[in-house]
Amino acid sequence: MQLAANPQMHPPALRGTPISAVVLTNGDIDHIAGLLTIREKTAFDLYATQPGLEIVESNSVFRVLDTALVQRRQIDLDTPFEPLPGLTITPFAVPGKVALFLEGETVNVEELGDQTVGLMLEGAGHRAAYIPGCATVPDWLLDHLDGVDLLLFDGTVWNNDEMAQTGTGQKTGARMGHISMNGEHGSLARFAQFEARKIYIHINNTNPILQPEAPERAEVLARGWEIAADGMEITL
Amino acid sequence: MQLAANPQMHPPALRGTPISAVVLTNGDIDHIAGLLTIREKTAFDLYATQPGLEIVESNSVFRVLDTALVQRRQIDLDTPFEPLPGLTITPFAVPGKVALFLEGETVNVEELGDQTVGLMLEGAGHRAAYIPGCATVPDWLLDHLDGVDLLLFDGTVWNNDEMAQTGTGQKTGARMGHISMNGEHGSLARFAQFEARKIYIHINNTNPILQPEAPERAEVLARGWEIAADGMEITL
Repeated sequence: MQLAANPQMHPPALRGTPISAVVLTNGDIDHIAGLLTIREKTAFDLYATQPGLEIVESNSVFRVLDTALVQRRQIDLDTPFEPLPGLTITPFAVPGKVALFLEGETVNVEELGDQTVGLMLEGAGHRAAYIPGCATVPDWLLDHLDGVDLLLFDGTVWNNDEMAQTGTGQKTGARMGHISMNGEHGSLARFAQFEARKIYIHINNTNPILQPEAPERAEVLARGWEIAADGMEITL
Repeated sequence: MQLAANPQMHPPALRGTPISAVVLTNGDIDHIAGLLTIREKTAFDLYATQPGLEIVESNSVFRVLDTALVQRRQIDLDTPFEPLPGLTITPFAVPGKVALFLEGETVNVEELGDQTVGLMLEGAGHRAAYIPGCATVPDWLLDHLDGVDLLLFDGTVWNNDEMAQTGTGQKTGARMGHISMNGEHGSLARFAQFEARKIYIHINNTNPILQPEAPERAEVLARGWEIAADGMEITL
């Protein structure tokens, strides 16, 4: 997740970006490879739990992020931090797994720890939860999210077995640490009574909700969800 | 450099690409980060000299390239290999430096070794040289390239100090291991008498030759060079 400060506070340099902080919620490639793209000697703070920082420290390629400009800052579960004035973020554990490239012989795909986290963002009297990867939605998680104004949630797959069905891979959503939208225990069912603005993010290219005419897309929208798209801006 | 096999030989899978081999000529981020994008369980061979393989091996993020599908193959200076039937490649040392993220306190920017290599491609009676990074053009390099049909050459900067001049950075082209086009010892002068089709590649976004109306672009074209662009296809 990238956080943009008020551009009037930090006028962008010729090669600058409005990004003043990056928070890693997971160590997988789709969460960290973008760091290699914002390496043009511009300053930002990089926040991650210990496993995320360990990946950044142990992979020499990330040294392209000059430590004089990019501060590495460890964050801890259930401990608020303030990456921008007026914005408080609290990371919390969600069911997930270790990054793919660090998997061993056995993998706990519903591990609860600091490998995969959600973020609770609070500022100006509003609360938003950002959860791009989540293997299941237990009751305690629903309780934890109670009262948020906005939920940004893992929309990787529609069906658990859709990669096999589409011939794009063998792994299930569950094996990848991602709950499906569809099904008795899917996110649509689990959040059916959840009162908040709800937006699916982190949508895999096998997910039929990306197809404009798909009935699955219509169903998601009819059930009160929005579907994230490039360039989307959110105001609370 | 990515090499595409005849697509009739390897029909692309649903998530396949026509890429059957990748050859690393340098360990810098702009040469290796693309590997993280072609990680969709498709098979290809990855060729690199020892320092390049060392980067891939020592950075755990590259484990996303499944070793069951992506064979790592070490190549050696002045030793031909055949990544595709009918195509022979011979790597050769060119003046350059170690990858930015592995730089120590002192850096030899004109080192000759296997950190930065050029590739001589030969097939169907033609020869092409691929040199995306090169700090200087000594006489021996001109001799080595004598008789090629095609030269693809380092076009990073127009002037050695153009990053400072444009306010985009402090480093000179020389400090980055890249000869300038312009100037008495620049590549335009050094290759002025060179008989081959010549194409500038690896062009930095500070280089004025990318501007359609720039006099520097007109000069480069007038001096017999082509300027690489996305989607360019080359037939010899």
